[in-house]
Amino acid sequence: MQPTGRFITVEGTEGVGKSTNIAFIKALLESSGVEVVLTREPGGTPLAEEIRALLLSPRRELVNDDAEMLLVFAARAQHIDQVIKPALSRGAWVLSDRFTDATFAYQGAGRGISWERIKLLESFVQAGLSPDLTVWLDLDVEVGMERAMARSEPDRFELEKKTFFEKVRAGYQRRCDEDPDRFAVIDASHSLAVVQQEIARALKERLHLA
Amino acid sequence: MQPTGRFITVEGTEGVGKSTNIAFIKALLESSGVEVVLTREPGGTPLAEEIRALLLSPRRELVNDDAEMLLVFAARAQHIDQVIKPALSRGAWVLSDRFTDATFAYQGAGRGISWERIKLLESFVQAGLSPDLTVWLDLDVEVGMERAMARSEPDRFELEKKTFFEKVRAGYQRRCDEDPDRFAVIDASHSLAVVQQEIARALKERLHLA
Repeated sequence: MQPTGRFITVEGTEGVGKSTNIAFIKALLESSGVEVVLTREPGGTPLAEEIRALLLSPRRELVNDDAEMLLVFAARAQHIDQVIKPALSRGAWVLSDRFTDATFAYQGAGRGISWERIKLLESFVQAGLSPDLTVWLDLDVEVGMERAMARSEPDRFELEKKTFFEKVRAGYQRRCDEDPDRFAVIDASHSLAVVQQEIARALKERLHLA
Repeated sequence: MQPTGRFITVEGTEGVGKSTNIAFIKALLESSGVEVVLTREPGGTPLAEEIRALLLSPRRELVNDDAEMLLVFAARAQHIDQVIKPALSRGAWVLSDRFTDATFAYQGAGRGISWERIKLLESFVQAGLSPDLTVWLDLDVEVGMERAMARSEPDRFELEKKTFFEKVRAGYQRRCDEDPDRFAVIDASHSLAVVQQEIARALKERLHLA
């Protein structure tokens, strides 16, 4: 039988503690003896990281919604082909900081691009590939923004208004409602210790981690 | 009544004389008193030109076919939104060095991406927008490659083999067969004077140019 790894994604709006908790998940998986490939979207390969830089750099030119979405899916096609599929094929576990749920949340719910149009590109690019588990760190938008602003210079997305992030959060909720078995919803307003207990429990229950 | 310009694209494989003949078409249109917006694909806006640079730069990383096609359509969405539609709306004539036929020829026929999949993205991004006239400069591939190689350092696409360009040429022919009324096929093996006579005649007949 072909060895097959698991595919875990971590999602959430700004300031929910993604980086800290991704490091925690990585350590937890490695302590169980699995090889972990840590990656992120948009990005994960040299070309995909260059596309990420195009997306995140502030620019005078108004970026068309479709152009933005197609760039995201171009990076994703490259990421899947060069990183995710090869890792899963050799039995490694892939841990990605964001994946397609972020496109639905940011470009779909946030920018108002049709949900159906994004689904069309999702099936076009992914051809059935879907995360085995998505850890959604959910947090009140205002709390998250305060945390994010205190940390570093805001990029183009972080400068968007609070109402935008409210829409993004609702977009994550919609994705979760559409596929609840794939999601572990974590209340990120709790203390880090409690958040990490919840994450560890979800990984053990959903992925039968040792 | 809303003024509406005309949309002319020029297509062909390497070395067919696109640049020279595009300059000729521009001068011909301007002598008829119309405003001409000269542009190109992939490119035409700052963001789209950055995407073009990603596509054309040689790289170690294998570029996934879907990723390449999605990048091309991302640039196109931006180009249509920021340049082509605004120009046509104010009554200008748009003259583009390549457009979607090149995607069918290079990514479709050349790289083997499904014709239907490209059509899906074409209707997704263009929503009915199509050139009023496409000037296809057609030439034997070997003759064209010799001309192109003599001119400048070859880029990633120019390094592809002759068989690739044969496929690309067949792709242009297929597009032409699918929509013959839109195409003016120009035999680019003739002298420049004859080629330009043919182009001028096509413009006058098809677009009722003064």
